[in-house]
Amino acid sequence: MRILLGNPNTTAPITEAMATAARGVASPGTEIKAATTPFGARVIGTRTEMVIGEYACLQLMASETGDCDAAIIGASIDSALRAAREMLPIPVVGITEAALHTACLLGGRFGLVAMSARSAIVTREMVESYGLAARLAGIAPVAITPAEFVADPDAALASLAGAANLLVERDMADVVVLIGAVMAGIPARIQDRVPVPVIEGVTCAVGLAESLVRLRIAKPPGGSYGSLPARELSGVGDAIPRMFGA
Amino acid sequence: MRILLGNPNTTAPITEAMATAARGVASPGTEIKAATTPFGARVIGTRTEMVIGEYACLQLMASETGDCDAAIIGASIDSALRAAREMLPIPVVGITEAALHTACLLGGRFGLVAMSARSAIVTREMVESYGLAARLAGIAPVAITPAEFVADPDAALASLAGAANLLVERDMADVVVLIGAVMAGIPARIQDRVPVPVIEGVTCAVGLAESLVRLRIAKPPGGSYGSLPARELSGVGDAIPRMFGA
Amino acid sequence: MRILLGNPNTTAPITEAMATAARGVASPGTEIKAATTPFGARVIGTRTEMVIGEYACLQLMASETGDCDAAIIGASIDSALRAAREMLPIPVVGITEAALHTACLLGGRFGLVAMSARSAIVTREMVESYGLAARLAGIAPVAITPAEFVADPDAALASLAGAANLLVERDMADVVVLIGAVMAGIPARIQDRVPVPVIEGVTCAVGLAESLVRLRIAKPPGGSYGSLPARELSGVGDAIPRMFGA
Amino acid sequence: MRILLGNPNTTAPITEAMATAARGVASPGTEIKAATTPFGARVIGTRTEMVIGEYACLQLMASETGDCDAAIIGASIDSALRAAREMLPIPVVGITEAALHTACLLGGRFGLVAMSARSAIVTREMVESYGLAARLAGIAPVAITPAEFVADPDAALASLAGAANLLVERDMADVVVLIGAVMAGIPARIQDRVPVPVIEGVTCAVGLAESLVRLRIAKPPGGSYGSLPARELSGVGDAIPRMFGA
Amino acid sequence: MRILLGNPNTTAPITEAMATAARGVASPGTEIKAATTPFGARVIGTRTEMVIGEYACLQLMASETGDCDAAIIGASIDSALRAAREMLPIPVVGITEAALHTACLLGGRFGLVAMSARSAIVTREMVESYGLAARLAGIAPVAITPAEFVADPDAALASLAGAANLLVERDMADVVVLIGAVMAGIPARIQDRVPVPVIEGVTCAVGLAESLVRLRIAKPPGGSYGSLPARELSGVGDAIPRMFGA
Amino acid sequence: MRILLGNPNTTAPITEAMATAARGVASPGTEIKAATTPFGARVIGTRTEMVIGEYACLQLMASETGDCDAAIIGASIDSALRAAREMLPIPVVGITEAALHTACLLGGRFGLVAMSARSAIVTREMVESYGLAARLAGIAPVAITPAEFVADPDAALASLAGAANLLVERDMADVVVLIGAVMAGIPARIQDRVPVPVIEGVTCAVGLAESLVRLRIAKPPGGSYGSLPARELSGVGDAIPRMFGA
Repeated sequence: MRILLGNPNTTAPITEAMATAARGVASPGTEIKAATTPFGARVIGTRTEMVIGEYACLQLMASETGDCDAAIIGASIDSALRAAREMLPIPVVGITEAALHTACLLGGRFGLVAMSARSAIVTREMVESYGLAARLAGIAPVAITPAEFVADPDAALASLAGAANLLVERDMADVVVLIGAVMAGIPARIQDRVPVPVIEGVTCAVGLAESLVRLRIAKPPGGSYGSLPARELSGVGDAIPRMFGA
Repeated sequence: MRILLGNPNTTAPITEAMATAARGVASPGTEIKAATTPFGARVIGTRTEMVIGEYACLQLMASETGDCDAAIIGASIDSALRAAREMLPIPVVGITEAALHTACLLGGRFGLVAMSARSAIVTREMVESYGLAARLAGIAPVAITPAEFVADPDAALASLAGAANLLVERDMADVVVLIGAVMAGIPARIQDRVPVPVIEGVTCAVGLAESLVRLRIAKPPGGSYGSLPARELSGVGDAIPRMFGA
Repeated sequence: MRILLGNPNTTAPITEAMATAARGVASPGTEIKAATTPFGARVIGTRTEMVIGEYACLQLMASETGDCDAAIIGASIDSALRAAREMLPIPVVGITEAALHTACLLGGRFGLVAMSARSAIVTREMVESYGLAARLAGIAPVAITPAEFVADPDAALASLAGAANLLVERDMADVVVLIGAVMAGIPARIQDRVPVPVIEGVTCAVGLAESLVRLRIAKPPGGSYGSLPARELSGVGDAIPRMFGA
Repeated sequence: MRILLGNPNTTAPITEAMATAARGVASPGTEIKAATTPFGARVIGTRTEMVIGEYACLQLMASETGDCDAAIIGASIDSALRAAREMLPIPVVGITEAALHTACLLGGRFGLVAMSARSAIVTREMVESYGLAARLAGIAPVAITPAEFVADPDAALASLAGAANLLVERDMADVVVLIGAVMAGIPARIQDRVPVPVIEGVTCAVGLAESLVRLRIAKPPGGSYGSLPARELSGVGDAIPRMFGA
Repeated sequence: MRILLGNPNTTAPITEAMATAARGVASPGTEIKAATTPFGARVIGTRTEMVIGEYACLQLMASETGDCDAAIIGASIDSALRAAREMLPIPVVGITEAALHTACLLGGRFGLVAMSARSAIVTREMVESYGLAARLAGIAPVAITPAEFVADPDAALASLAGAANLLVERDMADVVVLIGAVMAGIPARIQDRVPVPVIEGVTCAVGLAESLVRLRIAKPPGGSYGSLPARELSGVGDAIPRMFGA
Repeated sequence: MRILLGNPNTTAPITEAMATAARGVASPGTEIKAATTPFGARVIGTRTEMVIGEYACLQLMASETGDCDAAIIGASIDSALRAAREMLPIPVVGITEAALHTACLLGGRFGLVAMSARSAIVTREMVESYGLAARLAGIAPVAITPAEFVADPDAALASLAGAANLLVERDMADVVVLIGAVMAGIPARIQDRVPVPVIEGVTCAVGLAESLVRLRIAKPPGGSYGSLPARELSGVGDAIPRMFGA
């Protein structure tokens, strides 16, 4: 099967890092097709950029999934997840959503490491919107910029491990989730410093997307995710309108 | 003061109807400036259109609020509310949010009349995202298209009143909220058939926006709604990028 | 319009301070009529005094609102709010309720500064009873008596600002609410030391009360806040019984 | 031991019926002392009367418990429960609170039969305020006035049994609670028509009050129910002020 | 009446300590019959042992309650509580369940002292499964092994008192519950060091069990706790199968 | 990889039906090893049998997983899921847990079809214990015995489809989950009669188990699911004790 891994940020190197991680856990026969949005935010980090990223993601999903069996949204805020799930005839999974549900299969309550206080607040809102607040042990923000990560990766990893251990000790988390597209590949580098499972979203999303494809569920006509009726749109290009009334 | 009433749908007559309702409750000295998005969905009705509408709304808010003291988002799904609240230096209120908080000041639990089952599901998600699920008595979807409303308004009003009474009797609602931009002006036409207060969002939003302006709260630098730092964006026009790093 | 600002504590200077704050944000043409209960607690600070204050407030509301368009209950515990809302034919708003709903329009989760641990516990119960627990980031009690506030206001303000910043840093609050009738006028004195909006209830209540008046909602006959039927009461004076069966 | 059973309604016959039910389940050596408030509402049925009843109950509790080991508040709305628990040096239990916690020991979720839609709404608020919303299966209001109960008791019992069975079938309740002081003695009269346990509050409260007395817990100095400090009160008689600063 | 106090751990001395505490609060005429499981875990401390303990408890309950009016499950994790409640024709109470509901009658939110971080996590799950999460102020784990308790009881008591006070100060608990079968008899030894009531489960369970017996509720035929229908079982001995289809 | 599919019921034909469904969705190279408990309940249907089934399941998991990479618990009540997850060094998934998390990836709220009112109540408790109550639209019990299913499968399927459609129409479910081990293979037989996706647990569990294996997470030493320390057990055979202190 072929799975689109779409990045609603314009930073292609992150797309590549995610694709590498995804390929590392994909089952034999699964192809990961990576794509990066051509417009929008370089790295989504504010609520304003989140809206831009949702629109960019939806365009990407409408344009790039024609030959795919499933799609993964490769941004911590699962940009336009619900809309893409409605719009496309194939399964769609967000990386944070995937990590949270996977964490539920590994322990009781999960702790989250977020890349800033600002994103920690948004991440909590996401957990609540997924109805998973009862599984949230706590959130520990770290403050590492991409530049700092590149400059001193050991310090960054130590900071992440410290946040993870805080979640275990203070909040009694059974599992730790590293939130963010840039976390692909990181869990294995700190797992031996943390006494509970450490996971991130991209690798979790691959397994869940494969799982959904194998269930062979046809696009439903009804419910709030049912196939799109004919509607009138203007000024949004061709890709999205083609999805309506098909 | 001047308040922008922005419609993220492309249907100008709805903008006008909302503006009329808004002007009817505005306090002396308040000017309502109405604006309609030039692109997007004619009437947002699916999750896919919701994402488009959020982006359209954010563009509208960035372009049209320069001379305003507050902004109202005139769509049932409060398009891009959180992003606009972060992006703008002035208070922003969504019409559904406004109706829900106002309902809390009039009784215990509120019932919601939605224009379709599909929008009822999305409305419930909104109530939950506002942390108000404990105040929700129930949702009653009706199925009236705009065309049907125009063709036989009496039947449509009877249908709305019936749904409102169902919420009172079955769900013990103390207040009924009519959800939707098209509900501006409707409560007064069915109130005498319903034994509890009936409200809609546009008129509620005007009072709340005025209230926030009078509190004279400066744009905060911190929190997840703090002023936007400098960020890199591409392909989104000029209006939104001007809001960053100001 | 005329709005009663009723204080269920017997301390008139607090009534005056609240009235001054209220007049500072009222819209042109709004008159604030201040009234203080003639019996009860000097400053409500225990659950026992809360019950006394509720009864005192209800007497005040029955006696003093005959010439008013709306009423504000000027005590942190929103004394007898639900009963007054049922009993009176005009809108009624409590100052803490008003601050909490206003906070929801300014950010995601709010933090609360309470004047003692004892009142912090009661305030949490109020937040839960309003169905707003999901919006509560945390509560920070300070321990300042009125005498201490008078003796060293700068120290008191510093203590309040410290508590507010704790809520921002520890609990990631987007908004801070100062709980208490004595907080009228205080936000402006500490706002520049706190990176998120700081509000209190009296000024919020004025805007919400005006907003409700402008919606022109008639007293409903039904629901749990419907007009009072005829009932038999004894030993409670004349004012309250006159409200029944009218 | 001696337990005060206090009725915050002025209707003495209900006090007597409650006392009879209470004596039927009290353990050997327990004396039930019944007392009726001399002022207030004949039968509390509105939010306004609830506030009056709370004040009346607090006066009764301050006046009549001097020779008692525990107190029971004999009104469906557990009038002034939290204040009395704070004010008195002895355990205090409300009849609805008692029934709800007892129901939790008999099954999973409980269903509630309320005497009117208006009281059903208030009862739901009570369940939520006790933190027991997750145990609530549903509420079924009946509409029987005291006069109707006297005129045709068989019809009234059939109506109550019907509501109980509705809760079992529609809401899958494991236990049914009859809400109201007038329900003392009723469960035994309908139990054979209902397939799950049917309970009411007075009999439950006796056992819980005895249980608390036998734990011999001293009045705590701290927490939000700690002993009352010295405070200034005026115009509330002598009984309540004597409870402060003791 | 006769109440079985069953210990699903194989450690008889704990059974005896619980029985002593139970007899200290039982009302005149109540006999406490103590029984210890002959197989299973010495002290249940992991999820795996919890399952073993549930099965052991069910065997004990089926074998030993024939001459009893009620049963108490004497293990912190209330082993097989729901199954025993369904299986037996008499009331059944778990010690932790009993302590939690009793705590609700003594204050607002309760704090819990658990004997390890591992058991703290499980205890939180229990509180949630009882629908009481809204009453939980916090959990404070201590790390004292039975051997350490014997070797230096004063240090252990100081540690427990410290945890209790942390719950009062940090989490604003109104009541503190010591979780665990080994806590029988401990509250009185630390109460004078803690400003709010301190309770444990065995003594609470006795009063609640007596209370349920005095309500004289017949085994219900319906609901999810209704009497057991005929079913086919194999390899589980004779005691449990005799409970089916009786 | 090899996955154990363990049935804690003694009915081998259900094991076989589950294994067939599991093999139909397994990825290439995955072997499904089926095993049936040799003791316990023929079909778990009461809370008492649930406890027996948990113990039986734990024995099966300890005995049969030595050569496996993951385990699936094949009973609607996910017997001993948490204990098995703690006890085993490999991932463990329950079929109902799997279906619920998968449903979350396909829509907003899910509706559940249960095989009896009694099991519907238990299923709701499971949803709550998984922290997923906010995703639950409703539960529709049907009443079909295995014998009836064999005698008239078309009627049984029609009944299931009817319940599914009730969940869509009455409760606005976006996804329907058929609860029960006997539901393996059924969704495809009713999907064309239901407008939203219909799933069951066995097929969902296979994908999730494979996904967890591919993440290659080592057994954690810490958290409440950490590897078992040495403990003393008696009378439980050899298989389970071997899992401790390994």
